[in-house]
Order: sequence, then C-alpha cells, then structure tokens
Amino acid sequence: MSTWLLPENIADVLPSEARKIEELRRALLDRFRAYGYEMVMPPLLEYLESLLTSGGSDLSLRTFKLVDQLSGRTLGLRADTTPQVARIDAHLLNRQGVTRLCYAGNVLHTRPRGLHATREQIQVGAEIYGHAGLEADLEIQQLMLDVLRLTGLTTIRLDLCHAGVLSAIFAQDPAAAAAGEALYEALAAKDVARLDELTQGLSDVARDALRALPALYGDASVLALARQRLPNLPEIANALDDLEFLAAQVESAEVTIDLADLRGYAYHSGVMFSAYVDGVPNAVARGGRYDHVGQAYGRARPATGFSLDLREVARISPIEARSSAILAPWKHDEALRASVALLRDAGEVVIQALPGHDHALDEFACDRVLVERNGVWVVEAR
Amino acid sequence: MSTWLLPENIADVLPSEARKIEELRRALLDRFRAYGYEMVMPPLLEYLESLLTSGGSDLSLRTFKLVDQLSGRTLGLRADTTPQVARIDAHLLNRQGVTRLCYAGNVLHTRPRGLHATREQIQVGAEIYGHAGLEADLEIQQLMLDVLRLTGLTTIRLDLCHAGVLSAIFAQDPAAAAAGEALYEALAAKDVARLDELTQGLSDVARDALRALPALYGDASVLALARQRLPNLPEIANALDDLEFLAAQVESAEVTIDLADLRGYAYHSGVMFSAYVDGVPNAVARGGRYDHVGQAYGRARPATGFSLDLREVARISPIEARSSAILAPWKHDEALRASVALLRDAGEVVIQALPGHDHALDEFACDRVLVERNGVWVVEAR
Repeated sequence: MSTWLLPENIADVLPSEARKIEELRRALLDRFRAYGYEMVMPPLLEYLESLLTSGGSDLSLRTFKLVDQLSGRTLGLRADTTPQVARIDAHLLNRQGVTRLCYAGNVLHTRPRGLHATREQIQVGAEIYGHAGLEADLEIQQLMLDVLRLTGLTTIRLDLCHAGVLSAIFAQDPAAAAAGEALYEALAAKDVARLDELTQGLSDVARDALRALPALYGDASVLALARQRLPNLPEIANALDDLEFLAAQVESAEVTIDLADLRGYAYHSGVMFSAYVDGVPNAVARGGRYDHVGQAYGRARPATGFSLDLREVARISPIEARSSAILAPWKHDEALRASVALLRDAGEVVIQALPGHDHALDEFACDRVLVERNGVWVVEAR
Repeated sequence: MSTWLLPENIADVLPSEARKIEELRRALLDRFRAYGYEMVMPPLLEYLESLLTSGGSDLSLRTFKLVDQLSGRTLGLRADTTPQVARIDAHLLNRQGVTRLCYAGNVLHTRPRGLHATREQIQVGAEIYGHAGLEADLEIQQLMLDVLRLTGLTTIRLDLCHAGVLSAIFAQDPAAAAAGEALYEALAAKDVARLDELTQGLSDVARDALRALPALYGDASVLALARQRLPNLPEIANALDDLEFLAAQVESAEVTIDLADLRGYAYHSGVMFSAYVDGVPNAVARGGRYDHVGQAYGRARPATGFSLDLREVARISPIEARSSAILAPWKHDEALRASVALLRDAGEVVIQALPGHDHALDEFACDRVLVERNGVWVVEAR
C-alpha cells in the first residue's frame, strides 16, 4: 500500500483550512480568557482507567489503547478532554473557590461518529467548577453562544434539556432505570411504538411520564405543558424551573426545549444544552452540568461546561482567511535585509523569492513587491 | 493505583505555564507566517510504515504502536512531524516551485530522552522544499535564530556541521560505512580510544579522516584546519565551502563548527545546525538539510528545516506571562451585562464573581473592579 495513504477518517489539514482553524482557535481562546478562564493542557496519553472513570462503555469503545513500555500498563489516547480537566480541578489545583478552566487540543476516536466524520477532532471547551447555582450554567451557555457568534455563525438554535427529569423518573421505578440504555435509544429516535413496548411493565407513574416525553418538544411554552403531563415530583419541578430561568435569559438564539434529549444521561446531572445551525444535522457545540465527575478523582465538585470540534466549526464558518503578502528578491544587500526585517516586524508577510524560482501559487496572494528605487527599498503594487 | 496519577514522564500543563506556551506558540507561528510559511496540520495517527519511511530504527523504537479497528493495520502515534510534512509536500501539495511549510503540534515518545525529559513534546518547526541552494539553508537558519530571539533567549550559540563530510569518508571505504552506528557513538562521545579501535581495519584515507574529526571543533578558523587535515575530496571541499558561507552570514549568534557532530547522519544530506543557550545542556532547536526524505512518498525534493520543543523553550524562556483583570459582580442588570461585554470586546479580562464566592487566587490578578456609581458602571482600582 502507498506510504502516502492515510487511515480512513483521518486527514491532513492543508494550509488554507489550517489558517482558518488557527485564527478561530485564537479567537475562541481569547474569548475564554476575556471571561477569566485559565487554559490547561492535559496530556494526550494517560492510564486508561483514569480516562474512563466517568464515561461509560461508549467512551471505552471509542478510546485507542496502547501499552506503556515504562510501566507495562495500558494507556489510552484521550477521546474526550473533560474528564482530564475535572481531574486537574479536583487533584492538581484543588482550590476552594470557583475555578474556570479552558482547553484546546486533539482527541482521537477508534471509530468515526458517521461515514464522513473525522476520527481526529480538535476539541475546544470551557468548564466552571465549584458553583452549583444556575449562574454558572448561564455563564457557560452565554460563553458558548458568544464564541459561536465569533465564528460567524449567526442563526443559532439553542436546545435545552435536563438530566433531572429522567433521574426523577428512574428514582420512582428501578425497572425503568435498568432499561436505561434501551429507553434512551427509543426516546432519541422518538420511536413511540418501541417506547410503548419498553414501558409496558413499569409503574404507572414511570410509564406515563416516559410516554409523555417525546411530545415535550418545542418553544418555551412546552414547559407549562410539562408541568401538567409529568408527575408532580420536586426534582422534576426544579428541573423545569431551571429550564424556565435559562430559556428566559437567552437573547441571541432561538430556544427550543427537548425533554426527550437524553444524550449523556448517565454522565450529566443537571441542565444540558446543544447549539445547532441551519443545514448542519449534528449539534455544533454541546454542554451541561456534570457535578459528580470529579468524584473518581477524590473530590466531587459542582461542574458545568461545553465543548465543540473546531475542525467542524471551521468547516461551516463563513469567515474567510486569506492574506496579502509582499514579494521580495533574494540578494546580498544589507539595506534589503533591514527593510524585510522592518516589514515583518510590522506584521507584513514578506516572501523572498529564492534564486531561480518564481513565486509559486500558494496561500499568500503577493499583491505587492519590494523593489529598489534610487538606492532605497520601497513597496509597490505588483 | 490512584486515578489521578499520570504515566512517568507525562505531565499536565497548568495555567501559568499553558499561558506562556500559548503566547510563544502564537509568536512563533506569526513569525513563520511573516516569512511566508504556510501552516499545515498532519494527523497524530498514521499507518506505521508511512511514519517510519526515513527515520531508522531509533524512530521506530520511539514510536507508540496501536491497532486500527477499521483496517486491522498497525498505526503509529507520531514521534516526529517532519516526515509527515515531507509527505504533504510530495504528495498532497505537489507544487513545482518553492514551498514553505510550518507546523505546531504534539509528538509522543515511548521512552524519554533523559530522566526528567517529557515523553510528550510540542514540536514546532518550519521547512522549505524545492530549493537546493544555500539560500534556503540560510533562510531557515535565520528564521530559527529570529524565533529564538522572540522567546527572549539572548546569548545563543549556533553549532554548524555537515553530513557531506561523513558521507564522503564512507564513500571511500564501505567498511567505515558498515560501522556507521558505532562510529557515530564514538564521535559523539569524543571517545578517541574507541575511535582508534574502530578505525584500525579501515583504509588509510578513512582512518585518518575519522581520527581527525574530534579535534575539528571550534570557531570558524576550524574550517581552514579541516582543509589541511581532511582528504582532498570534492564532496568534503564543497561541505567546507557551504559551512564557510553560512558561518559568515550569522550576525546574532556565536558560531561554532563541530565536524564530529553526526546526529541524524543517516537522515540528513547537507548542512546541519543546532542552537544552544547557556545553562542548558541539550540543543534548544535543531535543523538541517534532508533532500531525500520525500523519496519514500514518490517525490524527492531538496528540503531543509528546523524544529524545537515548545515546552522546553517555554521552560527556559525568561518572558513572564501574567495579566491583570477586572472583577465584576454577578447581578441581573442590563447595564452591567452591557458594560462587561464592552470591556471584554476591548480585550479586557472580566471575571464575574458568582454569588456566594469571593474571587479565588488564580492566574489572574484582579487589580480593578467594576462598580456602580450614580447609576453607571465604572472601572476603579481595587
């Protein structure tokens, strides 16, 4: 097989795309910083059990495994950065107060999410630890909408849901909890027939509640409907209050409520949210509360955060990155060397044409040239 | 074992260090761009044989191997980015003219280079393809010195050597070529006794030349000495001419010549160089010509480049990254929200203190506060 073929669903990022990713990366990290989020860089490799503390079997299947020669133990190549950041908060930083952290780095998956999905994402995200109140959820949600605005994506739909609804139902009926995975699939597919079948043997409360969920989808008025149709349990009432508060705060996006959206139900513990844009079937960013994740590292802390795949966001972002440049000759000439250095320090791209080569077509459009006129070097239009 | 322990020679990068790395990363990539280098992002994983085309057994030993579920084939986690960039130049871009490429990304090693060395480096580098003349070597060498200057490292020593000297000696005597690895070790250690032993059975020309190499170390005057002591072969004369030309061009660093420095002799094909700073035993950046590397990908092109480990450079860089911030209260107040957004858009870091929490100690020094005075929000010293 040819040495230049890459594995399936693995690709190089070529200059124009790389430039766009780099510009968006900086814009996002700068925005995180403007909100007071501190950057961390967890390693790509860790002991497998440390990476898989909170993720369930899906995360394990998606994680590449390899052997550490130094310890003989199994390492994992991270498939998600969030557990690593929770580990850093819990163990390394170990602060008492609110901690805001952010990150940008590659994650790898053994299997692609879809036929054309990449197995190497650039995961960029932000997390708040140490505050259980809705103010933290709100800040994360607004930060997510703010960075999506920076990427030039305008008409954003924000989907809200809440892990508390399902956990309240499961708490009513252990048989429902035991069928969690199958219920999740039926609810995600809005497969009412399958849902009817799965809920047949359950208690009345659990059955009625689960069967009501698929229809509890739409704008904020769905919340009033939910209060009527779902059982009157404190945990459900609190969940609906949370969603009502957050939905009312959103100004820059259309809000939809989807109480049957249970993605990550085993991992999340409160409000969950996803951002969608027109013409793209999957969420471009996702987040939510996961208060118990730090537990495995010895310190459960309230936590909420969001993440996105920067390669996917760059693909759909309308922002164009292409910059002009100055073409300069190659010559032993002190004045030329000084002029080139000045221009580069001033932020210009100056490409010196090496002897015998014309400047080839590339990312840079050389719209100007550096030429000698009456003994001095000047920039002229090309 | 505790889930928060990391594998040996693998570490998290915490906020203050991460901030410094991020700032240097941007400064280096911006400088590459100012010279007209286009960024590429090769994948972390490739088929193993594709990663190992040019590296020899050392690279293979340092590369983590794992199995691709989709193809059943062995993948490697890259230990060096240069072969990937050569592949992109040869196959994907496939341009006729000069191509300048750069990159910044993680590389992983199965074994650390030393007791305290990391197994996860951030490799940052730049490469020129398509120009065989010394102008390309000079541009790369100056670019390397230029970016090291940006990192605040001032007294830099540039070591120059040339792969052509050794290949000319090896061409004279196949027995010398066969002992390449052992000769390399003896020369690197300047172990004269071992070198005498290894060269005993060789031809007079090869023996005398190899024995002369350890003493050919010092400032540019070493080149005149080398012309007397080394055999009068065209390839050696050319190599010494190249080094003389390049040594004369360097303005911002002390230059030393070390003709016994054979690191990467099997990989390089021309001038090689390393940058050293006071108090750090290993080179902080290395580079050189490797004209044949593209061959494995179907297209040998003249090529020269350099790379460095950004984590190591950040560790020794004297630049301090710590920025001030504004502490703002959390409150339902449209005017407050607008003021916070304005300040963040203007580049300020604004941290909202979530209800019930004082602002904890972290990377940001909140030297100012946002407070309400007579109905308007103003920034005051804290």
